[in-house]
Amino acid sequence: MNWHNSKLTSFDSARQDFLAGVSTPREFLEECIERIDELEPQVRAFVSLDLVAARRAADESTARYRAKQPLSVIDGCPVGVKDIIETRDFPTQMGSPAYANHHTPHDAACVYALRSGGAIIIGKTVTTEFAIGSSRQTTNPFDMNRTPGGSSSGSAAAVGAGMLPLALATQTQASTLRPASYCGAYAFKPTLGAFRMEGVHVMSPTSDHVGLIGASLNDIWHSASRISLCAGGSGANFLQNAGQPIIASKPPKLIRLFTRGWEEMDTAAQQVFDQMISRLRELGIEVLDRDSHREIEEIETALDSCLDRALEIVVYEMQWPFLDYVDRYGDLIGPRIHKMMVQARQMTKEYYLSLLEMRVDLQRKLNQLNMDLNANGFILPSSSGPAPIGLEYTGSRTFPSFANLVGFPAVSLPLLSVGCLPFGVQLFDLQGRDADLCQHALWLDKHCRT
Amino acid sequence: MNWHNSKLTSFDSARQDFLAGVSTPREFLEECIERIDELEPQVRAFVSLDLVAARRAADESTARYRAKQPLSVIDGCPVGVKDIIETRDFPTQMGSPAYANHHTPHDAACVYALRSGGAIIIGKTVTTEFAIGSSRQTTNPFDMNRTPGGSSSGSAAAVGAGMLPLALATQTQASTLRPASYCGAYAFKPTLGAFRMEGVHVMSPTSDHVGLIGASLNDIWHSASRISLCAGGSGANFLQNAGQPIIASKPPKLIRLFTRGWEEMDTAAQQVFDQMISRLRELGIEVLDRDSHREIEEIETALDSCLDRALEIVVYEMQWPFLDYVDRYGDLIGPRIHKMMVQARQMTKEYYLSLLEMRVDLQRKLNQLNMDLNANGFILPSSSGPAPIGLEYTGSRTFPSFANLVGFPAVSLPLLSVGCLPFGVQLFDLQGRDADLCQHALWLDKHCRT
Repeated sequence: MNWHNSKLTSFDSARQDFLAGVSTPREFLEECIERIDELEPQVRAFVSLDLVAARRAADESTARYRAKQPLSVIDGCPVGVKDIIETRDFPTQMGSPAYANHHTPHDAACVYALRSGGAIIIGKTVTTEFAIGSSRQTTNPFDMNRTPGGSSSGSAAAVGAGMLPLALATQTQASTLRPASYCGAYAFKPTLGAFRMEGVHVMSPTSDHVGLIGASLNDIWHSASRISLCAGGSGANFLQNAGQPIIASKPPKLIRLFTRGWEEMDTAAQQVFDQMISRLRELGIEVLDRDSHREIEEIETALDSCLDRALEIVVYEMQWPFLDYVDRYGDLIGPRIHKMMVQARQMTKEYYLSLLEMRVDLQRKLNQLNMDLNANGFILPSSSGPAPIGLEYTGSRTFPSFANLVGFPAVSLPLLSVGCLPFGVQLFDLQGRDADLCQHALWLDKHCRT
Repeated sequence: MNWHNSKLTSFDSARQDFLAGVSTPREFLEECIERIDELEPQVRAFVSLDLVAARRAADESTARYRAKQPLSVIDGCPVGVKDIIETRDFPTQMGSPAYANHHTPHDAACVYALRSGGAIIIGKTVTTEFAIGSSRQTTNPFDMNRTPGGSSSGSAAAVGAGMLPLALATQTQASTLRPASYCGAYAFKPTLGAFRMEGVHVMSPTSDHVGLIGASLNDIWHSASRISLCAGGSGANFLQNAGQPIIASKPPKLIRLFTRGWEEMDTAAQQVFDQMISRLRELGIEVLDRDSHREIEEIETALDSCLDRALEIVVYEMQWPFLDYVDRYGDLIGPRIHKMMVQARQMTKEYYLSLLEMRVDLQRKLNQLNMDLNANGFILPSSSGPAPIGLEYTGSRTFPSFANLVGFPAVSLPLLSVGCLPFGVQLFDLQGRDADLCQHALWLDKHCRT
C-alpha cells in the first residue's frame, strides 16, 4: 500500500452521517471489515477478532442512533485494544507464551470507559512481548519488509492501514508515538496519571501511560475525554477540558528540539522536517531553536544525558512482576527481559531515588525554559525518520522518550514522508496542558497537511 | 476463648529457635494447624486453606534453616492473605458471589514479596464484600456473638486467635486497625504508597493501603520490610529504614486526640484509655491534649469535619470498577455498594477536587501542629472500645479513618481491655515516619502491657 494513496478511516466524520441518518455504525463497521479482509493477511495487526460480536454491537449502536439516543460521541466506534490491556471478551496474552490463552473476567478501566460509551471492541492488537521484549508478527502497512514500530505494533498498523479509526495503545518510553509515526497515524499520550491504569499490564508505574492511536485528532480527543470522564486518574490528574470539543488554535511560539535524535536521522528525513519548520515560520509561528537561544541547547544536552537514565527507571520498577516471571517461566520470557532483570538486581534503592530526582530536575528545567521564553511547548520529530527495514528491531525510541520521561502530554501528527513512507511531527507541552496541546496540534494538522 | 488467657503466636521469637536448631518451621506450622483445628470451626476466619502445600513449604523452609540458608527473616512464616489480594494458588473471591471461584495466575506484589522470602501462604482469609460491603461468616475469637470487625475480618480473627503469626490485610478507611483492635492483634498500615498495590482489588487508589496484622510488632516490621524491599512503592515512597531492625524508642511527647470518636465510647472504655494515658505520663512521656493546648482542639474539629468527606473520596473513586459491577452483576452486588454508586453518579469532578484539596489542607495542619508542638505523633484509641455485639455491623470506623484519610502511617497495639474483650491503642505519625512510629510503638508495647 502506498502511503500517498492511502486514507485513514475517521469515525468522527462518519458520525455526522449517523446523526443525519445517511449512514449507520453497522455500515461503517462493514467498511472497516472490508479493509481488514483486504489487508490483514499481510499486515497481521490482530491477535484476535470477533466480527460476529462486533456486528451485533454495531447493530445495537445503529438502533441507538435511530432512536436519537447514542450513548456518547464514540457510540459505534470500532476499537482495537493492545493485547496487554485486559478485556472481558478476548484473552489478554501480553505477546508472551507465558500468558497464552489468559482470560480475565473484566475490562481494563480504559476499555470499560470506551465500551460503556458504545464503542465496539472489535479485537486485540499485536504487542511486543509485555510491551518491552522481542517483536512479533505485524508488518508495516506501507512496506511489509519494515517494522510497524513497537510496542503497540498492531494498534498503529491497524489504524495506519485504515482498518480501524481508533486503537488503544500504551507507552512506557516510545511505544505509542513511535509506531504511530511509522504507520502514518495520529497519536496522543496524555499527562502521566490522567487515566486509571487498572487492567493494563504494568511495567513502570511512574512511566506507563495509556495512549491513543487514531485516524484523526478528533477521534483521539473524543476517546480520551470519554476515558477521563469514566475512568479518569484518581487524585488531581484529570484530562484538561475533558468532554469539551477541541478547536484548532494557532500556537504563537514553539521551541524546536534537536537532541541526539537528530543525529540518528538521515539527510532526507532531516530535510523534510526542516521544510516543515520553514512552513510553520511562513505561517507566522515563531519557532525558537538552539541557534537563536543558547538555553535551548542546554536543555537538549540535559535531555540527552537523561535518556539512558529513563530506561534505568523502567528497569528498576520492572522488578515486580518481572523477577517473578523470569524465575517462574524461564525461557518462555525473552532474553531482553532476562538481561534487564540482571541489571535491576544490581541497582540500589539510593541510585533509583537519584534517578527520580534527576527526573524532577528535568521537569523543572523544561517548565522554566518554556516560561522564560513564553512558548507554547516543544516541536520535534516523532521518530528518527520513517520505519527502518526489518521486523526484529522496532526503531529508535529517542524522540518520544523525552516527553514520556517527564510525564508531559505528547501528540504525533502524520504530516511528513520520505519516499512512500510516513513519519510524524511531535508536539509536547507541559503537564496538564493536554487540551491546549491538542488544539495546537489540530491547527498544525489543518495548515501543514501536504 | 478468654482474651486474658489467650496468647498470640509470634513467629519472630520462634525463629530464634529455628536458627538455634531447637525447633523447625514445620513444627511451628503444626502448632498453628493445631490452633486452627481447635478454633476455626467457631471463628471461621478462612475462605480457603491448603495444609498439604503448607506442610510441603514448611519442610522446604526447614531444610533451608538446617543448611543455614534461610531466604529472609520471614522464611517459614505462615501467612494468611485477605481474599481481595491475588494469589496464584488460591482463588481470590473478594467476598462476593460475582467472583466465585475466580482464579488468577499470579501473586499480588505484596504476596510475591512474602512468598519469595520463604513465607508460607497457608490460605485466604475472609473479607467483607470487596472490603466494603456486607459482612460475612467470621466471628470474634473472644465472643462468637460479636463482630471481629471488618473488612479484614478473617486476617484479624486468625491472628488474634493465635492461629497465625501474620496476615495480610487492607485498609481504605478502617479495615486493618479496627478488626485488629477488636481481635487483640497488632496492626500496621504504612504511609500511603509505601507498597506496590498491584494484585489488590482496588476501591480508592488515593485511600487504599495494604496493611499487616501480626502477633508482634517485629513480625509486622519484618514482613513490611520484606514487602518494601521486593515490591516497594514506585516513586519516592519507600518504607523508612526497611530491612533494618526496629529498636524500642521512648517518644518524649505525644499529642492525644479525642475527636468525635470519644463520644462513641462507653464510660468503661474511656476509663481504660484514660488510665493508659496516665500510665504514659507516669512513665515520663509528655501527653499534650485539648485541655493543655487550644490548637489541639482545633485540629480535632478539623478532623471531625473531614470524616464524612473521607468516605466521599472513596465513593467517587469507586466508580471504576463498581459502576461496571452493579450494571453487570445486579443483585449479586450488595445494597450498600449499589447505594454508593447512586451517590457517586451525583458527584461532580469539581466537588471531588475540592475534597482532595481538603485532604491536602488537613495534612498541612497536622504537619504544622506536630512541628509547632515538637511532638512525636498522635495517640488515640484504635476503635471505639471493644467489638460490638452482632455480626452484621463491623463497628465504627471513626478512629482509624483519620490517619488513613491523610495517608499517615498508623499502628494498633492490643494493650487495652474491657471485661474479657480487647481493644487497641493507636499511634500515628507523619508521612514517611514509619520506622520512627514502629519504634515508639515498640516502646509503648514493652512498658504498657498489662
